[in-house]
Amino acid sequence: MSIRKNRTRDFASSPPEPVAGNGLLHRRALLERGVMLAGAVATGAGSQLASASAEPLTNGPWSLAPGVPIPPYGQPSKFEQKVVRTLSNPKLEPRTSGARTPHHLLNGTITPNGLHFVVARGGETEIDPDKHRLLIHGLVRQPMIYTVDALHRYPMVSRISFVECGGNSAPLYSKEPIQGNVQALHGLCSCAEWTGVALATLLDEVGVDPKAKWFIAEGADLPTMNKSIPLAKAMDDAMIALYQNGEAINPSNGYPMRLLLPGYEGNMNVKWLRRIKLVDSPVMAINETKQYTILRPDGKAWQFYFPQEVKSFITHPSPGLSIKGPGFYEISGISFSGNGRISKVEVSADGGKSWAQAALQQPVLSKAFTRFRMAWNWDGGPVILQSRATDEAGNVQPSREAFIAERGPPRGTPNVAAFTMEHCNAITSWGINPKGEVSHVYA
Amino acid sequence: MSIRKNRTRDFASSPPEPVAGNGLLHRRALLERGVMLAGAVATGAGSQLASASAEPLTNGPWSLAPGVPIPPYGQPSKFEQKVVRTLSNPKLEPRTSGARTPHHLLNGTITPNGLHFVVARGGETEIDPDKHRLLIHGLVRQPMIYTVDALHRYPMVSRISFVECGGNSAPLYSKEPIQGNVQALHGLCSCAEWTGVALATLLDEVGVDPKAKWFIAEGADLPTMNKSIPLAKAMDDAMIALYQNGEAINPSNGYPMRLLLPGYEGNMNVKWLRRIKLVDSPVMAINETKQYTILRPDGKAWQFYFPQEVKSFITHPSPGLSIKGPGFYEISGISFSGNGRISKVEVSADGGKSWAQAALQQPVLSKAFTRFRMAWNWDGGPVILQSRATDEAGNVQPSREAFIAERGPPRGTPNVAAFTMEHCNAITSWGINPKGEVSHVYA
Repeated sequence: MSIRKNRTRDFASSPPEPVAGNGLLHRRALLERGVMLAGAVATGAGSQLASASAEPLTNGPWSLAPGVPIPPYGQPSKFEQKVVRTLSNPKLEPRTSGARTPHHLLNGTITPNGLHFVVARGGETEIDPDKHRLLIHGLVRQPMIYTVDALHRYPMVSRISFVECGGNSAPLYSKEPIQGNVQALHGLCSCAEWTGVALATLLDEVGVDPKAKWFIAEGADLPTMNKSIPLAKAMDDAMIALYQNGEAINPSNGYPMRLLLPGYEGNMNVKWLRRIKLVDSPVMAINETKQYTILRPDGKAWQFYFPQEVKSFITHPSPGLSIKGPGFYEISGISFSGNGRISKVEVSADGGKSWAQAALQQPVLSKAFTRFRMAWNWDGGPVILQSRATDEAGNVQPSREAFIAERGPPRGTPNVAAFTMEHCNAITSWGINPKGEVSHVYA
Repeated sequence: MSIRKNRTRDFASSPPEPVAGNGLLHRRALLERGVMLAGAVATGAGSQLASASAEPLTNGPWSLAPGVPIPPYGQPSKFEQKVVRTLSNPKLEPRTSGARTPHHLLNGTITPNGLHFVVARGGETEIDPDKHRLLIHGLVRQPMIYTVDALHRYPMVSRISFVECGGNSAPLYSKEPIQGNVQALHGLCSCAEWTGVALATLLDEVGVDPKAKWFIAEGADLPTMNKSIPLAKAMDDAMIALYQNGEAINPSNGYPMRLLLPGYEGNMNVKWLRRIKLVDSPVMAINETKQYTILRPDGKAWQFYFPQEVKSFITHPSPGLSIKGPGFYEISGISFSGNGRISKVEVSADGGKSWAQAALQQPVLSKAFTRFRMAWNWDGGPVILQSRATDEAGNVQPSREAFIAERGPPRGTPNVAAFTMEHCNAITSWGINPKGEVSHVYA
């Protein structure tokens, strides 16, 4: 570990060489050169910087009096009250409730529990854990009922995993770009550390009948959410999750237990889980027939289409986060794939004409959010920012044009159309005008 | 990915071979054998299990009516109200406030922000981020003042890192074992994903004078918390952290920014950070002279002793979590080292006579919590559980006896003694009696 030597050049006099159009910079080159970055710009003091003597450090009132008592359970600062989920059904009318994660106001890869996305047909279900039971039955040697206390005695596993609603990013299907922010467009995905009992451990205990090929997972919520899932997933990495980011699962996300199927479509990760039935064929629930199938241009549909495809989107900058004049910025965003690890994320600032490879925050974990970061010197002209992720299986995120060409435009009644727009992983484009305003564009 | 074949043996008829005394089991052997585990015991139905027909699954009231609206910012279930920090100064009297993480009620490795431990001399400081400034000055080419907005433009980094108070685990110094739970004994450590700007990036910008060897970090809280830190740490992995588990740092943990020094003594990770001054020698602040030095038996003291030593403790079972009769349990706990990765955690159920290697939850990250897990078949007799961690630098957690022999017993006035009991990483012992009650013992 050596101390870096003093640097003399500043950003204005000798900017690093770009690696792609419109000012994308090589991250390592930037960090090695000791350049003057945002500070220089933010103070508006020409090529030099606000010095200590020019703007003396003053005490805020918080430095002059005691604070407040530490609360037993901490809450975000009162200055962060805008950092909340947007709700699609705040009065709990008899329809689905959605809550979207504000990715443009977050950073890193973990989604705090209070901001994890939710899609729930019957609202937030409040379960007394002492009265809740999990039944595993069907094609098994010995059906079993598990209490929450009993499950806490089993060998547990933890993993950081994203969950994404099959309908996330569906606004990209619209003919004209919807002027929503990243929360409105991509807010139905989140990432947390989940801890619980591997479903394989419980299935070993009940004894799987060789005739069993699927299992049906059912929730204890009013709509009795249920889905058919291949038994192979149960034996691979499925988990009965009891903890989310260390603490008991949030009630919106399935307290006291949910099914976690890393990488699979969100609604298959059944919340408030009460029953797993082993069967020889799918149950043909509404969520796998009328809904969550993908209608192809030829009129046939893709059914039982589980992993969420490789995806990325830029969170900083993004709509609502205007940038303040030319100069240095970090472009960063989220990438993930239901098929494994992210292997590469490329960023373009010229609408896809040229691309540069972004830095991936380590460790890159399978089926988890991977934060990507790209250094950028904005010259003040109009730009179009895009990101394109590739996963370890070789899947590459498609352009919107290619995606629509394959799937066809949305069609049918509005109600039907909503269910032809699943699994959209097209590239998102942010246009930035010379004022620094960011908008959703198609490019 | 193959589906496991049906299993026929159960736990009662053919238990797996133990790997150490008093029932410690090989985890892989257990998982490969398809044994009857906790379910069998919990239902009390003899050698077999409660079947679906014997105890029909009934609907809770939550299955018969809609739930409640999804909140904009989710909170834990009302059934988890006991999962809170314990407070040492709930009325904010003019003394230090502490808040301890309830590790016995958590699992995994991430500590949710609301439950992260806190030690604060002046309570929770409420800072308006628009009025907060960070000054970097002293032995630099160009002093700089950074606004929060400016820092958000810099290249960021994320890492999962523990923070531990130098005084954590000090109760193990007591002559008789204090009957506290794991929260009381070890609750002053937590782990989160932190995101912010590498301090090295900012120091590159201000330009480090070669004469600078240390920096002084100072908080904006009323007591103006300050510490001297070797400059080498700044150039290694120090971070100006802005985000904690994805969202803005919790106000108790330094909103809008704190210093993060992965692996170093908690109080050096200065919260509400407002000033970094580069200097040629330490400032000799109260926190590195009167406090946070380690008085040796010969009357001399260790000063500037930074990394938190390799440590582990068992969270499940632990005092307050009684176990319910003989049978299978998972023993699990937390391990970490300020010197890098955990390489091994061993568990003993016979007070240290025999040891078995626990499974480490992957990925094992440097200077982060690593969850360890051990399968255990309790025969109902008295046992003493211990865990012993080793880090990649080869440091091994010492027995309490060896630790006290090296450091000497606490001495001096009670007030002085409190500051001779830093950096205690001795092995913790839990005694379990035939009733299943867990207590803190010395062994």
